[in-house]
This record gives sequence, structure tokens and C-alpha cells, in this order.
Amino acid sequence: MASIFTRIIQGEIPCYKIAENDQFIAFLDINPVAKGHTLVVPKVEIDYLFDQPDDVLAAMLPFAKKIARAIDEVTGCIRTGIIVEGLEVPHSHLHLIPIYPARKGFSLGIKSSVSKDDMSLIAEQIRSKVQL
Amino acid sequence: MASIFTRIIQGEIPCYKIAENDQFIAFLDINPVAKGHTLVVPKVEIDYLFDQPDDVLAAMLPFAKKIARAIDEVTGCIRTGIIVEGLEVPHSHLHLIPIYPARKGFSLGIKSSVSKDDMSLIAEQIRSKVQL
Repeated sequence: MASIFTRIIQGEIPCYKIAENDQFIAFLDINPVAKGHTLVVPKVEIDYLFDQPDDVLAAMLPFAKKIARAIDEVTGCIRTGIIVEGLEVPHSHLHLIPIYPARKGFSLGIKSSVSKDDMSLIAEQIRSKVQL
Repeated sequence: MASIFTRIIQGEIPCYKIAENDQFIAFLDINPVAKGHTLVVPKVEIDYLFDQPDDVLAAMLPFAKKIARAIDEVTGCIRTGIIVEGLEVPHSHLHLIPIYPARKGFSLGIKSSVSKDDMSLIAEQIRSKVQL
């Protein structure tokens, strides 16, 4: 069965999309640990990130950089960090997480509450700043 | 002043080295959160990861993959995850962290105690499996 991320890529499930190219899609994490928390997902559905082919891995951080710059510009975070854990959805992905001055740790275990309106707004703001 | 990582790269400070090429060095984190926790450090000293040039970013995950495969083979972890936070040492780096079945969260805040002997042993084991 297709992963939830593949179903998002195929448009079957909606998302707060940030950017997309041939290889990747970026959208807001629906359970963010901070406002602006974005997932970068390779379109090829492979569970473990380090099983992705080198050409996908090589393109991933340069793509993520463009998203991170937009997050930095929009959110007022100190910088954007990365977590790859990959034990929940069996489709490799990278978490881009803005780090705010008042953060309490840096972990996927500490969720933030962001309203749907705020999710829409921050997605629109980040999306408008991404230059692929 | 050169960062502690630049001083390691220049051989002024010892490390448990795992691998090295023209662009990166990998060595054990001296305060590991899990046995086999390894840092991947670009040789160019730039604070924020996403300020690194695209050619460095493009080479980073393919290099990290080779280290991660060796960690996976040697440590018996479920898989190797990634954290980039970058608020402690102003020289961009990526944490490769083996995720074990008994893990308690996935965060840089939870340190593991690994003896010097075990650090030496695990470094030697991982190093022997890396194929650059």
C-alpha cells in the first residue's frame, strides 16, 4: 500500500504544501514541534533514508536549504535544524525544524500546538519566499 | 579563532576518527547519546549548515550514507538517524545517531555513557567497515 506521503504526493490527501520539484515535495508537518516545521520528502517511496540512491541524497540538502532559508526569513527563528528519525512513516523524510530562542530541547517528542489558521498562514508565508 | 572541529581536522586535537576525504571528516562524538554516535563535519569552517555552498551540501548525505551503513552493520541498531542543531560548536556538522530498540527518545539532550575503551573499540569497528 502506498505510504501516506505517497498519497500526499499523488494529491489524494491534502497538505500544507511549501514547495515541490521532480524529486521532492515539502509540506508542513501536521503535528509540528514548532511553527514552520516542514517535512522534505523524496518522491521515490523508500523507507530508510540511507537506502535512497546517491542522486536523491545529493539533491536533498540543496533542496532543503531553499526551504530553510524561507523558514528563517519568515519565522524569526535562530536557525533551522534537521531531524531524521524515520520510525513512524515508512517513507524516508527529513524534518526541517525552526529553532526558536525559547525552545525547550530539540526533539520530535515535544509537540507544539499550532491552529489550522496559523498552519495555513505560515505555509503561505514560507511558500511565497521559497525560490527553487 | 579556529573552531574545535577545525583543530581536530588539522590534527591539533585528537579524535576517534571514522573516515575522511577532501570535503569531510567523520569522528565519534565525545559526548555520545548512543554508542556509535558520529559527527560528519565539512572541512570548510562555516557556522550554519545552510550557509554551506551547494557542492558541500550535495556531497554530505552521500558521504554520511557510507558512515551510516558501517554504523548499522557494526552496532546492531535499527537504523541511523540524523540531527542537525548546531548551537554548541559554530562549525556546521551533522550528528549520525544509531537508534537502538531500547532508546528513550531521540535527542541530543540525553547522553549515554560510553567508556574510553568502548569508544576506541567502536571507532575501530566502524572505521574498518567504511568504504569511501
